[in-house]
Amino acid sequence: MKIAIYGYGNLGRGVEFAVRQNPDAELFGVFTRRPPETVKTAFPETKVFPAADVTHCKDEIDVLIICGGSATDLPAMTPALAADFNVIDSFDTHADIPKHFAAVDAAARQGGRIAIISVGWDPGMFSLNRLYASAILPDGKDYTFWGKGVSQGHSDAIRRIEGVLDARQYTIPVQSALESVRAGENPELTTRQKHTRLCYVVAEDGADKARIEKEIVTMPKYFSDYDTTVNFISQEELDRDHKGIPHGGFVIRTGKTGADNSSSHVIEYSLKLDSNPEFTASVLVAFARAACRMAGRGDRGCKTVFDIAPVDLSIKTREQVIAEML
Amino acid sequence: MKIAIYGYGNLGRGVEFAVRQNPDAELFGVFTRRPPETVKTAFPETKVFPAADVTHCKDEIDVLIICGGSATDLPAMTPALAADFNVIDSFDTHADIPKHFAAVDAAARQGGRIAIISVGWDPGMFSLNRLYASAILPDGKDYTFWGKGVSQGHSDAIRRIEGVLDARQYTIPVQSALESVRAGENPELTTRQKHTRLCYVVAEDGADKARIEKEIVTMPKYFSDYDTTVNFISQEELDRDHKGIPHGGFVIRTGKTGADNSSSHVIEYSLKLDSNPEFTASVLVAFARAACRMAGRGDRGCKTVFDIAPVDLSIKTREQVIAEML
Repeated sequence: MKIAIYGYGNLGRGVEFAVRQNPDAELFGVFTRRPPETVKTAFPETKVFPAADVTHCKDEIDVLIICGGSATDLPAMTPALAADFNVIDSFDTHADIPKHFAAVDAAARQGGRIAIISVGWDPGMFSLNRLYASAILPDGKDYTFWGKGVSQGHSDAIRRIEGVLDARQYTIPVQSALESVRAGENPELTTRQKHTRLCYVVAEDGADKARIEKEIVTMPKYFSDYDTTVNFISQEELDRDHKGIPHGGFVIRTGKTGADNSSSHVIEYSLKLDSNPEFTASVLVAFARAACRMAGRGDRGCKTVFDIAPVDLSIKTREQVIAEML
Repeated sequence: MKIAIYGYGNLGRGVEFAVRQNPDAELFGVFTRRPPETVKTAFPETKVFPAADVTHCKDEIDVLIICGGSATDLPAMTPALAADFNVIDSFDTHADIPKHFAAVDAAARQGGRIAIISVGWDPGMFSLNRLYASAILPDGKDYTFWGKGVSQGHSDAIRRIEGVLDARQYTIPVQSALESVRAGENPELTTRQKHTRLCYVVAEDGADKARIEKEIVTMPKYFSDYDTTVNFISQEELDRDHKGIPHGGFVIRTGKTGADNSSSHVIEYSLKLDSNPEFTASVLVAFARAACRMAGRGDRGCKTVFDIAPVDLSIKTREQVIAEML
């Protein structure tokens, strides 16, 4: 399958790496809205094209992986491209997924193409695990915890505060809450009880650190509902100790079965990721394989991870996965 | 959907409970090879029929869940019934799955029916997690650990030793091996390094316990490759402390991505089950829903968990799962 990357940031770069790990995939190239000569790809042989030229290449690309942001890029890009390409995106604004789905579905059906939206780990693998676990244990309760990991949105919010030069925010699950969930205690957890927030901030020389800290911990939506710790460090320390983009989390469902609901069960799925964008990219490439196969069978329209038969994700044949993995 | 149970032991009883937790499912009844009047169901209103009458009811049953053993029951039963019914089984002899698949597929296609084989947690949910994780992280290694849980096969093997009245065997994962895998150390683990075996044995009065212990720990295939601990206890203690059938385990894949494979990732799925048969039964009922829906769409032949789009497992509509779970 010939894969093209549309949009080249951390996620696009992750796809560039992931394609190399899949012998049935080949990278057509990268499409960018920046001047192509300014884009430095991970591999020098990767071709870079202007985004405006993408439709000229539509007969040469099996799947286009759209690596844009969910706030403004994907709501416009994915429907626009879904009429001409089989596309995959990682749209992750949970509340807006039905609207995005409808727009992409209309475009993909009109163009006779497949689109798979909201692919990654949350939404994505975490969603799949929520669905499987709730189907198996209808009489139960599920919990999603995130972290320890870097939230780009929260890091950006801190950077917008006056006197802040740079910042990195970690979301951390509260260990005692995790343990209570695993023990089947079905706790009712407030936002504050589930996660804490840890911030590393580089302040301008002479900046009022007390004011910056207060602005962070009282910031509505982002921090005010959490126990937040602020550490001021130097730019050198930030660059040295916090340049990675780790993330991960836990999806746990506990449920009851049997006579008088006397049996308890715990289903837990967890991820511990050194690089959030590289892992997300790896999920995107696996679902690109499914998109290709489904398109080849004449399937059309917008899909989500819930619609994809797992066998279509594997490089192995159906006979192989039955013999080797079942 | 109208579900019938074929074979009534611990697993069939689990299905009887699980059907009640799914508002879209209704229990047609239980089919048994024993005299029906000797079968005591969990709920008095559950109807019990002779197995020989099952084909007379084929128009009234949407899915037949076959609750037999993998050694001799299912290889005969599932192909025989798949021509007349949509069927689900939990065939779990991993090495014989391709052969079982072929036999069931031929019967189901001939009868225009759907069959889903090897449904449960291993094979089943563990298989799904092996497939998803390997598709996402091609450059990685996966590990399956079982336990802590009761192995019926090993318990039975002990009971066949002269002088043994009763026994219960627990399979226990070696914690240090689990930790090494989670740390991404990619250890090469021998059978002995992955699991230990813990046995509780009730011996006849005056039996030679030293001989029994030696026969257990040296038993080929079952125990000789493991570090095995044997505890002799009374029947009262066994009945009081070891009557449950807990099980569970871990599927872990670690893999690398990015420049020079510098990013490590850990995907872990785990189950902690108070009742192995009740949990397996709950998985069977969720896949029975998928069998019904797929049959309704005209799909035919033998399937495995790998062929089932997750959305078909949920009692919710596609729109609901997209809005609520993605």
